[in-house]
Amino acid sequence: MDTEALQRRLAAFAAERDWEPFHSPKNLAMALAAEAGELLEVFQWLSEAESAALAPGDKGWELAQDELADLQIFLLRLADRLGVDLERAVEEKIRRNAERYPVEQVRGDATKFSHRD
Amino acid sequence: MDTEALQRRLAAFAAERDWEPFHSPKNLAMALAAEAGELLEVFQWLSEAESAALAPGDKGWELAQDELADLQIFLLRLADRLGVDLERAVEEKIRRNAERYPVEQVRGDATKFSHRD
Amino acid sequence: MDTEALQRRLAAFAAERDWEPFHSPKNLAMALAAEAGELLEVFQWLSEAESAALAPGDKGWELAQDELADLQIFLLRLADRLGVDLERAVEEKIRRNAERYPVEQVRGDATKFSHRD
Amino acid sequence: MDTEALQRRLAAFAAERDWEPFHSPKNLAMALAAEAGELLEVFQWLSEAESAALAPGDKGWELAQDELADLQIFLLRLADRLGVDLERAVEEKIRRNAERYPVEQVRGDATKFSHRD
Repeated sequence: MDTEALQRRLAAFAAERDWEPFHSPKNLAMALAAEAGELLEVFQWLSEAESAALAPGDKGWELAQDELADLQIFLLRLADRLGVDLERAVEEKIRRNAERYPVEQVRGDATKFSHRD
Repeated sequence: MDTEALQRRLAAFAAERDWEPFHSPKNLAMALAAEAGELLEVFQWLSEAESAALAPGDKGWELAQDELADLQIFLLRLADRLGVDLERAVEEKIRRNAERYPVEQVRGDATKFSHRD
Repeated sequence: MDTEALQRRLAAFAAERDWEPFHSPKNLAMALAAEAGELLEVFQWLSEAESAALAPGDKGWELAQDELADLQIFLLRLADRLGVDLERAVEEKIRRNAERYPVEQVRGDATKFSHRD
Repeated sequence: MDTEALQRRLAAFAAERDWEPFHSPKNLAMALAAEAGELLEVFQWLSEAESAALAPGDKGWELAQDELADLQIFLLRLADRLGVDLERAVEEKIRRNAERYPVEQVRGDATKFSHRD
């Protein structure tokens, strides 16, 4: 994914529509969280097994795909507005997660994976 | 961003820790939405102008960067589990948004941008 | 629950701290959604059965209780700021849900329960 | 608001439709967070001032009222399933907030109000 090229296209899309004043980081964070809420709706009454069995063509799968695209778009747009290098931030986070969750200590227990600190 | 390579690394990270049983699409959607909630926390008491003025070194900016990384990681992981091609889904969505929000009709009015239909 | 008395106390709590300028409906909606994100965190790696087995004294139960209180507080505060009569709105919604989800049509299928329309 | 009577009616509503198996705390938390996402949608492109100016009859106000009702319903239902006494939890939380945010220390600075601990 060419994040910079996508960010330029999304910025142009907003600029052409005079939407820039609406795209404050605060508002984009709300829009992103609203999309996350729509993603939850797809899965809320499904069992975990049902969620794992969704496949292309299933209504739930198609809805999920659509929400994932919306989430990626708002994520790119918000990173752009804040000046966050998304790729570098992901690399840094993976590195820190590896330090914080050593294989031997957390094996088989995802509850030890707390993103709270 | 090499999404496939990142997805392979994130899958290996989970596999080494025996976290795969926890990573159902349902659970990953919850984790992603929880991260979106943390992102909201960064901005909830800031004005839009304050949110736009955040810069590297500011506590809010650093927190936001961290949450954006978490969101990207869960987005990649969830797309991988569902078999969604994130890049293609984004392209398709941008194409549809261009059709649905013609410049002349929506200029200056982001409220016409409804992702609800 | 005496919602009006609680709303008066919460308004006084905010006024004493000069927090009223921060308590726009927009900001309170963000704070409420952020709390909902924290609630998700409690349950995201638990199975449905584990979530149903939580009991007082369990860390997850205590965290959930805390988040439910926060959610109720922000809900009361936001309803107050918007001038929504929460109790009447709930009665009206229950009435409409009964019309929209007739027992015979939706029995055993919660996926028919869509709050999307 | 007679929370216990409402909880009995909501439990009966679910039982009549055989929806109880879907109403695990995990799923109800997801449904509640999805409603919070819909609430965000109402406010995401509005300024704070616009959000404060919403009045009965405005489309945004009516949507917000509807979402607040949904949120209250899921909050009551989830508290019921977990065995949380919502009213007591709120009282306890207000008491703790008063201790944690002494008027003199936090006046005019809502950012000191962190619900994160």
